[in-house]
Amino acid sequence: MVNYCTPPPAPPARPEADLDAIFRALAHPARRTMLERLGRGEATVGELAGPLGMSAPAVTKHIRVLARAKLITQGRHARWRPCRLEEAPLRSASYWLEEVRRLWDARLDRLEAHLQSMATPEEGNRDDEPCE
Amino acid sequence: MVNYCTPPPAPPARPEADLDAIFRALAHPARRTMLERLGRGEATVGELAGPLGMSAPAVTKHIRVLARAKLITQGRHARWRPCRLEEAPLRSASYWLEEVRRLWDARLDRLEAHLQSMATPEEGNRDDEPCE
Repeated sequence: MVNYCTPPPAPPARPEADLDAIFRALAHPARRTMLERLGRGEATVGELAGPLGMSAPAVTKHIRVLARAKLITQGRHARWRPCRLEEAPLRSASYWLEEVRRLWDARLDRLEAHLQSMATPEEGNRDDEPCE
Repeated sequence: MVNYCTPPPAPPARPEADLDAIFRALAHPARRTMLERLGRGEATVGELAGPLGMSAPAVTKHIRVLARAKLITQGRHARWRPCRLEEAPLRSASYWLEEVRRLWDARLDRLEAHLQSMATPEEGNRDDEPCE
């Protein structure tokens, strides 16, 4: 049964610094394009730069932002230092968004239940007295 | 059957300007706290400011960033102009993140299938010749 009087718990605390860096890194179309490319497999700086029509130094700056947010790692030993997507930060961001959407859906469910109880007062008032 | 040679399609094009604004708006802990609060229902500027220990003018600046990203709308006629969460931009951001995660999972599946075909060469080489 939906309880109209008890709000759902807040989403669990997340490491704020990480989400700041993650969302900031995602707020640029070039970086999102790079992540989409890396979703399909490792890529060198040159391979990331090509489709974007960017110079390697420009792409390197974006790589640094993505790496600071831990969205990618870069090989240290290979000559071309291929970049690799790290899924965990994407999952954290996705988790936060879904938690807020769940809160929102739960609120809509409570509103709907409340409206239904108002539409059928003879049932609603007998057993489901609103809490004060 | 997993085809190791054909990469999965790229995520569908999204309105880049919106995702820029959405992710930028999400990249601040105060704005995320405000969205978590609004997930539970409408709130006035004062109600949003309280738990953050912020002044109303400081919160108003954050509200403007959230409103530009269309993550919230603000009532125009009520005296206290309550803020309301808008779910669609959260859904767009979540959709983009899930698309990249799906690319990543599909890549892992292809890698696994490839490794399995290498481990059983007598079967893999007869019927599943790698495409060129």
